[in-house]
Amino acid sequence: MERPRHQGMVKNTSMRWRLPLVCLLWEVAMIVLFGVFVRFSPEADAHWEKEKQEMNLTSDMENDFYFRYPSFQDVHVMIFVGFGFLMTFLKRYGFGAVGFNFLLAAFGIQWALLMQGWFHSFKSGKILIGVENLINADFCVGSVCIAFGAILGKSSPIQLLVMTLLQVTLFSVNEYILLSLLHVKDAGGSMTIHTFGAYFGLTVTRILYRPNLEQCKDKQGSVYHSDLFAMIGTLYLWMYWPSFNSAVSDHGDAQHRAAINTYCSLAACVLTTMAFSSMLQKKGKLNMVHIQNATLAGGVAVGTSAEMMLPPYGSLIVGFICGIVSTVGYVYLTPFLESKLHIQDTCGIHNLHAMPGLIGGIVGAITAAAATEDVYGKEGFIKTFDFTGSYQTRTASVQGGFQAAGIVVSLLMAFTGGALVG
Amino acid sequence: MERPRHQGMVKNTSMRWRLPLVCLLWEVAMIVLFGVFVRFSPEADAHWEKEKQEMNLTSDMENDFYFRYPSFQDVHVMIFVGFGFLMTFLKRYGFGAVGFNFLLAAFGIQWALLMQGWFHSFKSGKILIGVENLINADFCVGSVCIAFGAILGKSSPIQLLVMTLLQVTLFSVNEYILLSLLHVKDAGGSMTIHTFGAYFGLTVTRILYRPNLEQCKDKQGSVYHSDLFAMIGTLYLWMYWPSFNSAVSDHGDAQHRAAINTYCSLAACVLTTMAFSSMLQKKGKLNMVHIQNATLAGGVAVGTSAEMMLPPYGSLIVGFICGIVSTVGYVYLTPFLESKLHIQDTCGIHNLHAMPGLIGGIVGAITAAAATEDVYGKEGFIKTFDFTGSYQTRTASVQGGFQAAGIVVSLLMAFTGGALVG
Amino acid sequence: MERPRHQGMVKNTSMRWRLPLVCLLWEVAMIVLFGVFVRFSPEADAHWEKEKQEMNLTSDMENDFYFRYPSFQDVHVMIFVGFGFLMTFLKRYGFGAVGFNFLLAAFGIQWALLMQGWFHSFKSGKILIGVENLINADFCVGSVCIAFGAILGKSSPIQLLVMTLLQVTLFSVNEYILLSLLHVKDAGGSMTIHTFGAYFGLTVTRILYRPNLEQCKDKQGSVYHSDLFAMIGTLYLWMYWPSFNSAVSDHGDAQHRAAINTYCSLAACVLTTMAFSSMLQKKGKLNMVHIQNATLAGGVAVGTSAEMMLPPYGSLIVGFICGIVSTVGYVYLTPFLESKLHIQDTCGIHNLHAMPGLIGGIVGAITAAAATEDVYGKEGFIKTFDFTGSYQTRTASVQGGFQAAGIVVSLLMAFTGGALVG
Repeated sequence: MERPRHQGMVKNTSMRWRLPLVCLLWEVAMIVLFGVFVRFSPEADAHWEKEKQEMNLTSDMENDFYFRYPSFQDVHVMIFVGFGFLMTFLKRYGFGAVGFNFLLAAFGIQWALLMQGWFHSFKSGKILIGVENLINADFCVGSVCIAFGAILGKSSPIQLLVMTLLQVTLFSVNEYILLSLLHVKDAGGSMTIHTFGAYFGLTVTRILYRPNLEQCKDKQGSVYHSDLFAMIGTLYLWMYWPSFNSAVSDHGDAQHRAAINTYCSLAACVLTTMAFSSMLQKKGKLNMVHIQNATLAGGVAVGTSAEMMLPPYGSLIVGFICGIVSTVGYVYLTPFLESKLHIQDTCGIHNLHAMPGLIGGIVGAITAAAATEDVYGKEGFIKTFDFTGSYQTRTASVQGGFQAAGIVVSLLMAFTGGALVG
Repeated sequence: MERPRHQGMVKNTSMRWRLPLVCLLWEVAMIVLFGVFVRFSPEADAHWEKEKQEMNLTSDMENDFYFRYPSFQDVHVMIFVGFGFLMTFLKRYGFGAVGFNFLLAAFGIQWALLMQGWFHSFKSGKILIGVENLINADFCVGSVCIAFGAILGKSSPIQLLVMTLLQVTLFSVNEYILLSLLHVKDAGGSMTIHTFGAYFGLTVTRILYRPNLEQCKDKQGSVYHSDLFAMIGTLYLWMYWPSFNSAVSDHGDAQHRAAINTYCSLAACVLTTMAFSSMLQKKGKLNMVHIQNATLAGGVAVGTSAEMMLPPYGSLIVGFICGIVSTVGYVYLTPFLESKLHIQDTCGIHNLHAMPGLIGGIVGAITAAAATEDVYGKEGFIKTFDFTGSYQTRTASVQGGFQAAGIVVSLLMAFTGGALVG
Repeated sequence: MERPRHQGMVKNTSMRWRLPLVCLLWEVAMIVLFGVFVRFSPEADAHWEKEKQEMNLTSDMENDFYFRYPSFQDVHVMIFVGFGFLMTFLKRYGFGAVGFNFLLAAFGIQWALLMQGWFHSFKSGKILIGVENLINADFCVGSVCIAFGAILGKSSPIQLLVMTLLQVTLFSVNEYILLSLLHVKDAGGSMTIHTFGAYFGLTVTRILYRPNLEQCKDKQGSVYHSDLFAMIGTLYLWMYWPSFNSAVSDHGDAQHRAAINTYCSLAACVLTTMAFSSMLQKKGKLNMVHIQNATLAGGVAVGTSAEMMLPPYGSLIVGFICGIVSTVGYVYLTPFLESKLHIQDTCGIHNLHAMPGLIGGIVGAITAAAATEDVYGKEGFIKTFDFTGSYQTRTASVQGGFQAAGIVVSLLMAFTGGALVG
């Protein structure tokens, strides 16, 4: 039975056919493209039973599925529950935030599987997908969710879908330039996901600037439960961030190390966020928005370096700084961006993703440049930075330079792309 | 201190002793039966330390625990949080839905461990349980949760417990016929869990028909937060469905493939659900109920075939179709079932589980019938369909026939069982 | 933009500088201590690539990360979402409970990494941390969250931070005495986490007794959604408890067995909780507080014995008893403690953690004392109780005695420590 219920997503009559048409046409296109291009990776194909014998693998455990699936599920929760519920703190957009986030992400992951597949998993005319492709598709869509945080409440569903389509495309190009052409390491995506996604979204919201938008009225009444819902988003992002930063790292010690570093950085970040939130508020009260957002900045900022030999105290320092930068950003920078630069950053992604992403890129470049065979071991050094094949002779300091170049490329792609899309 | 609080589950005085008595007697019976029958499987027994040496296993990783435990936990969340919170969208039954779901499931898993144990894990007079038994017990109880969705608000706790007892019993018999006698593959339970559970519940609710039940009144006021709670249920079901369909698949490529196919099918399903929901509503608004339910139909419908070599574009097609079928079902079929057939389907399980389950059974039969050694590889073909021992000579087309027979058996068991229980 | 919002954590003006100062100084101290002491364990260090070759390991899967990381994430969710949201049933402290729990835990895990590291992972002047250290730090902080449940609403944030600092310190000392000096087994922490944490918190709250505290007024109005939020906490604790009790058990059968036993105990506990809740309430209604809390007692009480060869029916018996003890405790003991002993136990931790923890310690002692080589196998017996090195000659009954001694030591440490801190 059809229940007339609360309608979080109001649309005008003229749009009645547009959303259905776009969704259906898009999905048909996906089916055709998947039919032409997408097949299973060897480890997900039934032929693996034979291949195992040929490769002399004694255990099914060697299948990449078991190395990555638990992390994949954590990342999956971050994208759909974490980002979705984080945005429910805006009472007015609560359900819309969760619902549109769901639509965007489901829409985006299919296109991301194709785009990233063409760039990274294309073999003899086919894209071969496995669990790592699913994680990367979720990552790519994560960058769209970040940008969505800036324009929340300012665009129609159709506009959001078009933005998703274009952003996924540009994300994949940027990622290809960084990871393949520049041979940059960025497992947790400080540059590719956070810096790119945030500055892309901020550029779009700058162009969509509407002077009379009064997003903060109509919020009287209890927002108590909205805050608890938002905390669900915050906590799942905070708890699973170690999985995010380690999900696509090399098997073994690299995944292990990335999880530990992220855990440390996030713990430190909570302390400095609380400290500065209390310090900068009247009467020393804690601000919910800071707790819901700035506590996560530490995870963003070790995205690039977590899998490197950044020592645990290094992670604490990164988390320490980012809790401060992000909280101060919410108090002083967001109002400034809105009043002077006409950037209406609904969820404050500049404080949570843009600045910590940049810091993460810089920390990554420094950590890479400072790497020595002494600290990593000869084999570990080669494996960590993948200095094989044509990169055999690259040194740590050169790698540091390329990492820095990656930040610049991500910024350029974000501004140009955002301007075009906007 | 005893706090007088909101009481979601009102019962009349005469029942004061019945629920406690049933629960306590039942639990004592469980203890006795577990004492007589249940022991640890070799991989959960301390003797494994020795057995490992005898089997020449070099690593503790070969223990089934590590292949299945992460998926088990995801399934566990689906049963207790997913199904529980999905039903909170009914404002009036919110807490009752979560609480009774908790009681039913805890009650059912113990009986399921015994019933399924006698059929599948019985060795020299003992049921030997390991992590796979826990998953299967959760699966079995999942089918009870589905049926619960049809009769929500129409029966007392005692009636629910009796229904659970009988449904778990019939589920196990049906599962035994399908998996052991017919040698049918159904890892994600399209037939055994969804088709059986849904038609069982629908038959029961038909018999419990009360013409004056006005389940939809008394829902004025904000149901805003109820919708967000329901979205928690929806999203956890959606995110963890790949774990559900791959949890008991063969180690290695089969688990890997099942997760990928489910991921693809669910993504496609979101798009067509949104499209049809918007198209069939006045003014193009999206209906929350569709988003909360129909988006999951794609997971149900690849339950049987996900571990087979159903290609990713095949999963997209299945998801595409099921989003449409399920949404159209909510708009047209549920009112029809209620007014003409007197079936009050509180949560619309006919749209979410019954029809997609049937589609899943059919897709599974077709995928099995179409299997070739070329596509699977010789070893993969044998492993996927377990064509060993007395099934060594079974062909793909014969397997397809048996799969189809499995659908019929599940339907018959559901209707007969539901009628008896009702 | 800074949004004026609901402020769950009110503090007076004089405190404006104290919380920031404490947090910042503390975090600086952490950075210095981590810098001096903390490095990666061999399995998280880039040198592992070489070590693998030397140890003749053929697979990255042998890294402890893959044995423990999924359980770690489940434990992480229990600490931050489980304990946090469980306390939201108190309408008045809802957000504060989640927020302070977040602050305490992030604060505590860093200090726990150091304290536990000095006692258990200290090698040539450095603490070497890996995923097991992260789990143990979460465990240690779990014991603080338990104590927090007793004093919720009765102390300032600064007091809470000081309590955390001291409790983590005493926890580590107690844990060292039990695990290292007495060579006691307590993988799920019935003694070290629950008994210690609960009696510590109860001692503190006894000393903080304020006769006029009326914690239960001001709760009129709908607490409907508070109950659903609390159920999120309850369910995550309930579902992930098998991971909690198996997280640091030996690889292989011990982890497997611990998960199964906890699953069984928890299922039984739900049934007897529901039975006694209904029986002891007027009109047979179910009490939400019992469902939210007493259903978890079964997990606490198999903490010590779950990894031993406690048979599944033994777990059912433990769960059966604890559901009753805990529910009866809420109905009769909590009011008695408050009126006669002046112990205001806000969340009823005496019923959920203290008594079940004691039962768990006793069950563990009995199970250990009853162990035979017949039941465990020769190799399994030695591995389960780690009877190697200087413990080679210890017998099962002696081990049982030491286990019992562990309970007494934990109680003494809790009372003394709580009194000092209070």
